[in-house]
Amino acid sequence: MTSTALPTIEEIEAKLQRGPYHQWLGITVESVGEGEITLRAKWRDEWVVNPDKGYTHGGILAALVDLTADWALVSKTGRGVPTIDLRVDYHRPAPPGDLRVTGKVIKFGSQISVAEAQVFDIDNKLVASGRGVYSTAVPKA
Amino acid sequence: MTSTALPTIEEIEAKLQRGPYHQWLGITVESVGEGEITLRAKWRDEWVVNPDKGYTHGGILAALVDLTADWALVSKTGRGVPTIDLRVDYHRPAPPGDLRVTGKVIKFGSQISVAEAQVFDIDNKLVASGRGVYSTAVPKA
Amino acid sequence: MTSTALPTIEEIEAKLQRGPYHQWLGITVESVGEGEITLRAKWRDEWVVNPDKGYTHGGILAALVDLTADWALVSKTGRGVPTIDLRVDYHRPAPPGDLRVTGKVIKFGSQISVAEAQVFDIDNKLVASGRGVYSTAVPKA
Amino acid sequence: MTSTALPTIEEIEAKLQRGPYHQWLGITVESVGEGEITLRAKWRDEWVVNPDKGYTHGGILAALVDLTADWALVSKTGRGVPTIDLRVDYHRPAPPGDLRVTGKVIKFGSQISVAEAQVFDIDNKLVASGRGVYSTAVPKA
Repeated sequence: MTSTALPTIEEIEAKLQRGPYHQWLGITVESVGEGEITLRAKWRDEWVVNPDKGYTHGGILAALVDLTADWALVSKTGRGVPTIDLRVDYHRPAPPGDLRVTGKVIKFGSQISVAEAQVFDIDNKLVASGRGVYSTAVPKA
Repeated sequence: MTSTALPTIEEIEAKLQRGPYHQWLGITVESVGEGEITLRAKWRDEWVVNPDKGYTHGGILAALVDLTADWALVSKTGRGVPTIDLRVDYHRPAPPGDLRVTGKVIKFGSQISVAEAQVFDIDNKLVASGRGVYSTAVPKA
Repeated sequence: MTSTALPTIEEIEAKLQRGPYHQWLGITVESVGEGEITLRAKWRDEWVVNPDKGYTHGGILAALVDLTADWALVSKTGRGVPTIDLRVDYHRPAPPGDLRVTGKVIKFGSQISVAEAQVFDIDNKLVASGRGVYSTAVPKA
Repeated sequence: MTSTALPTIEEIEAKLQRGPYHQWLGITVESVGEGEITLRAKWRDEWVVNPDKGYTHGGILAALVDLTADWALVSKTGRGVPTIDLRVDYHRPAPPGDLRVTGKVIKFGSQISVAEAQVFDIDNKLVASGRGVYSTAVPKA
């Protein structure tokens, strides 16, 4: 795989926001580097699992781990790539509020890559973290 | 943990639908048994990751694996319980359409339980599957 | 990938036992079918993690989940294949004694496959279970 | 859970080596800190999966991830603790030779903790990495 020039924040945000679910999650790009990225997600009432406590559903956090680890690979892939599998650890309940997610490549490979992500709540506490395995083979022409 | 009487489909659906994200996912209960459950989720345009192909985002599938494995435990727990961790395998792209998810308990424990779920697309093809570890300790009074 | 004729128990056992670690684990093949296999492992004193209680180390159980899920694919692969990742759940301590492990394919793919395995102790109790993701691409000539 | 004084390398090594499987893996402690540890494992011919290439079996690497993540918690636990589940990513084949493994706590909790580990080969290349979830509840008296 040929390494591409590092895309700009605006370029990545435009690609991410083509995805309707990324729009719904209110994803914006805070920063991007070689093999790393920081995203933000904008709180919605629909995220809640438990109306008494207002905690965010684990499926929202899983989506954020998945997509942030995926896009941490963007300095090499230039695009979102298929997830092979995803593992998420839940560390504490996530109270209402926007979330910040940092992603980092663990191993970049020509066929299979591994990246991780950490989700922080509005008080900067780690609420979830995890890893994905991604298919980084170049698509056939 | 005392085993509770098996709740009815209506009782489980009412509990599930208290969660705003469950409502958004359009979750309904198709059947329930001892240590197993079948749920359905109603397609939404916002689920899409890629507007060219219309595939459902992996984060939606992860949410469905998580919540269905969780509620497969309901014959013992009588409620949704906290997820400790989640693992999801993606088997093929999920085309637009409602999804059916079957959940099954692997091991019920007094503190920690493990359950699995399988997500099927509208053509009944397996699109994703996985497991969660759940905290099934009885909450302190 | 061309499906191969189902190998015999003797053929699989001969291939498995080429691996020194498989020999050390005392692996034998109990049965084999299309997308499934049952193996046995012969107890060794060196497996113990805790000399007071004699429980088997989680790393032994992880090895058994890995290799049994891998060889559940043998009806398609004809050989052991590289593991991409492995997830193991520990359900209860494994007392001293031989172990039986059943493996089953979840999804066979031309590039990536997923299989699961369950480890049973000498009293036939489930002590661990899990899944692996395997690289089932045909090696380049 | 009361935090204990950081044990010395000699104390941790003595505790680790009570386990017969740890002895067999030739585990020694290189360094220890608050929420982190570095271990070494001494190569054995029996570790090999494939006699033609001499690569180490994934089950050996899984054992090293499990035990190193577990003992990264020792500054808080003072002992090895039960593994709830384990996830291992395999990044490249591990050639014959001693292995070095670094472990680090991700989240320490009073009931459940998460830690990670990275396995490096004799050329200091990352061959595997992963995470475990551990039961860090204080045992009942």
